[in-house]
Amino acid sequence: MKIIGIDPGLRNMGWGVIAVDGPRLRHVANGIVHSEGSELGPRLATLYRGLCDVIAEHAPVAAAVEQTFVNKDAVGTLKLGQARGIALLAPASVGIEIGEYAPNAVKKSVVGVGHAAKEQIQHMVRFMLPGVAFEGPDAADALAVAICHAHHLQGRSLRIKIKA
Amino acid sequence: MKIIGIDPGLRNMGWGVIAVDGPRLRHVANGIVHSEGSELGPRLATLYRGLCDVIAEHAPVAAAVEQTFVNKDAVGTLKLGQARGIALLAPASVGIEIGEYAPNAVKKSVVGVGHAAKEQIQHMVRFMLPGVAFEGPDAADALAVAICHAHHLQGRSLRIKIKA
Repeated sequence: MKIIGIDPGLRNMGWGVIAVDGPRLRHVANGIVHSEGSELGPRLATLYRGLCDVIAEHAPVAAAVEQTFVNKDAVGTLKLGQARGIALLAPASVGIEIGEYAPNAVKKSVVGVGHAAKEQIQHMVRFMLPGVAFEGPDAADALAVAICHAHHLQGRSLRIKIKA
Repeated sequence: MKIIGIDPGLRNMGWGVIAVDGPRLRHVANGIVHSEGSELGPRLATLYRGLCDVIAEHAPVAAAVEQTFVNKDAVGTLKLGQARGIALLAPASVGIEIGEYAPNAVKKSVVGVGHAAKEQIQHMVRFMLPGVAFEGPDAADALAVAICHAHHLQGRSLRIKIKA
């Protein structure tokens, strides 16, 4: 079972795919879809096509997107929202269920505490996915979100087993 | 030449299509794509499919989207941004150029002043597009954005004629 994690951004849309086999996690691929230029529409179309290509290639059955709340200006929040809409649409348009996680939940799931530095997260992602090489910090973040979702699903299946 | 105007919203995505023939404007169609429920991904997918269907049916060659800046909380702005991303993606994904207009620019273009009440705008839209019946206030707003873009394009072609 494959999970795609997405770290939304208008300039750099990070993505990471992991495979889950019972309690085991394995790195599959990670990368970044870039968009540049002054025209917002074509930039969003580039991001959407890029994410759809990744999903078509790796065929994940679950997706997870970081639930980012910016405290910056309204313009910055609106920009992020537009990119985030694309990050959610790409998996939803092919019927993939999406988990949304707050940054603190991702950190807690990967590092064990809700307030961890970027380096700590990347260190733990490397530890959990041996041999991984990050295409960039946004791709590392995306893998962390995917790991968080895997832990969530593993916890859920564990609970189901205990109940049964 | 047909123009689609879009008024972005997560619950109600208003759209309106007008036909431009030289200085004349004509109403073609207007409507609202609704989305409900707690799952954001499927809601965005509903909005995207709905807008893509409208674009496929009416085949506009230009699009205009309102450039909304909310002064509400960051959560509200993020939500609107996500819907706005879809509003921009739908025309951009089929290569349609998009004009973006601030609410004041739309009002000025339709009513003549930058600060006009909703009722004034709807009144002028009815006057400019005889026989129109609005599917709802968001559809009326979308038609106003389309009219604004038509005026902008007419002004541009007028300038080109004068130069030539």
